[in-house]
Amino acid sequence: MSEKMILLDHGSGGLASQELISEVFIKHLDNPILNSLEDSAILENPGGRLAFTTDSYVVDPIFFPGGDIGKLAVHGTINDLAMRGARPHALSLGLILEEGLLFDELERVIISIAEACREAGVYVVTGDTKVVPKGKGDKIFINTSGIGFVEEGVDISSKYAKEGDVVILSGTMGDHGITIMTRRAGIALQGDLKSDTMPLHRMVAALLKGLPGDIHTLRDPTRGGVASTLNEIAENSGLSIEIDNEALPVRPQVNAACELLGLEPLYLANEGKCLVIVSGNKADEALRIMHGTPEGKEAVVIGKLVAGKAGRVVIRTPVGGARVVTPLHGMPLPRIC
Amino acid sequence: MSEKMILLDHGSGGLASQELISEVFIKHLDNPILNSLEDSAILENPGGRLAFTTDSYVVDPIFFPGGDIGKLAVHGTINDLAMRGARPHALSLGLILEEGLLFDELERVIISIAEACREAGVYVVTGDTKVVPKGKGDKIFINTSGIGFVEEGVDISSKYAKEGDVVILSGTMGDHGITIMTRRAGIALQGDLKSDTMPLHRMVAALLKGLPGDIHTLRDPTRGGVASTLNEIAENSGLSIEIDNEALPVRPQVNAACELLGLEPLYLANEGKCLVIVSGNKADEALRIMHGTPEGKEAVVIGKLVAGKAGRVVIRTPVGGARVVTPLHGMPLPRIC
Repeated sequence: MSEKMILLDHGSGGLASQELISEVFIKHLDNPILNSLEDSAILENPGGRLAFTTDSYVVDPIFFPGGDIGKLAVHGTINDLAMRGARPHALSLGLILEEGLLFDELERVIISIAEACREAGVYVVTGDTKVVPKGKGDKIFINTSGIGFVEEGVDISSKYAKEGDVVILSGTMGDHGITIMTRRAGIALQGDLKSDTMPLHRMVAALLKGLPGDIHTLRDPTRGGVASTLNEIAENSGLSIEIDNEALPVRPQVNAACELLGLEPLYLANEGKCLVIVSGNKADEALRIMHGTPEGKEAVVIGKLVAGKAGRVVIRTPVGGARVVTPLHGMPLPRIC
Repeated sequence: MSEKMILLDHGSGGLASQELISEVFIKHLDNPILNSLEDSAILENPGGRLAFTTDSYVVDPIFFPGGDIGKLAVHGTINDLAMRGARPHALSLGLILEEGLLFDELERVIISIAEACREAGVYVVTGDTKVVPKGKGDKIFINTSGIGFVEEGVDISSKYAKEGDVVILSGTMGDHGITIMTRRAGIALQGDLKSDTMPLHRMVAALLKGLPGDIHTLRDPTRGGVASTLNEIAENSGLSIEIDNEALPVRPQVNAACELLGLEPLYLANEGKCLVIVSGNKADEALRIMHGTPEGKEAVVIGKLVAGKAGRVVIRTPVGGARVVTPLHGMPLPRIC
């Protein structure tokens, strides 16, 4: 491993910047639009509506089991596009590097971004790099913005959830959150728990193709977890949501870590899961479609939309108990993504 | 001024995040697309090609004469779109806040963003906020990405500069760079020098309308200054550029500060200037159009594209001297934008 470091000069806009661009960015992210190095990328446009999203990634540590900040930055922005029913098309890449970052670490992150893009079928078409003095940042912060295309007739929003709709969760809760938190706390978990970071656009495309008009809402429960996202859906749809406590999928290691740390899986961040709100009579078909994809093979029904106080989320236990689930509050879990 | 501060919890995705979004972001950036607070914004699409760009802003100090980091983030990204001949349409806003940032300072920046958007006729349609622990960032870093639409027939690129084309600079060099550097060094300049931060899309639209097909290249000389940008144009077009030393416009205060600090105006950052490469026989008409706009009223011809070694930029002095101008090298001017 080389000891070559990022210097302030790499953000100056001069020769050092150009070397960084050609030796790291173009080398790995190579595509004709990015390679032209103009002030903006120009994209052909198939018409129809556009989806546009942005997310910054400040996760600490930058490398973790199951991924790294680069993969997260690609998957997270792809997923934000997919949650509106859009087909992800192009990403921007904005880097804020701390002076002294090892060149090799930067290159490892860029290679990871390149792999994640290839695997998902998207391209980085425009980028920018700034360097801040040592102690004014932390290794690497990444912003990815994304553009996607929305097909005619697709209209997905948390305000379209309807009474009688069923809530499906595409897999287990908290894998990403617990992976990052235990890693940061230096706690070694038994087994091979890793971040669930993964792109969800192919599973979403399969759902929209199989059940046009019946997929009302899609949301990925990242920061704030399933609890906060369900609260937003209930709020925006003007309905209540009832969740079946026994149905909530959590891996044993995540449960164990939550008990140890005094955390609740419902509030933990996920990076490769989504909540699907589907017409009640199409829930079985939605599950069948999801189970046929690698991203949704552990999908389960966890609850339903019901008439009631707008924004209220209630968890029901088998013995007839019920408790209200509020959004995350006063529980800072910084730099989880 | 209130002492209310940004806490880690404001980046958690829970209730504190929601309060920040409604009390600051929605309050000032108010528009129907942003207000829906979905994972992505959905934009109507007039067809044609899209321009897409990204830039992160890490300027220090965040408030300076003539502007602040918020205005810079709006203008800079608008200008990157305009430099490809695109009509700026929508912006994303990604914030990385340092724990302890004063709420009032954040709000001041957001108000400034809102004003700059209104003035330029663009909208922030999607956003994201992360909070990093104290000492892991520096007050506020902003990423804005932008989407613009490119009209049929418009095709602007640094590779289209042709032999015989004339180089116009839209105004004086180095106002932004010297404003930031002297502010940071605690040097008080005589007079009222301030950053030139300003959106250039209206001047560009006037040029493209008045001289369709004759505007070959547009570039804004930000980091690295006019010298680095001219080198890129010469490189990409495969030509040489000759610059007339006497024609280069520099304000007296900037010249004085450059002498004091041992700097060269050609390498200083600008945030409201552009280089226009236009067919030689249309240079007078281009100047006339630019002089009719507030952004270009000080525009001057500074040189021309000539056959010769690809990528070579030469400055000629009245007494017949000539020197080669290289891109910025080994001169770190961090956090100028």
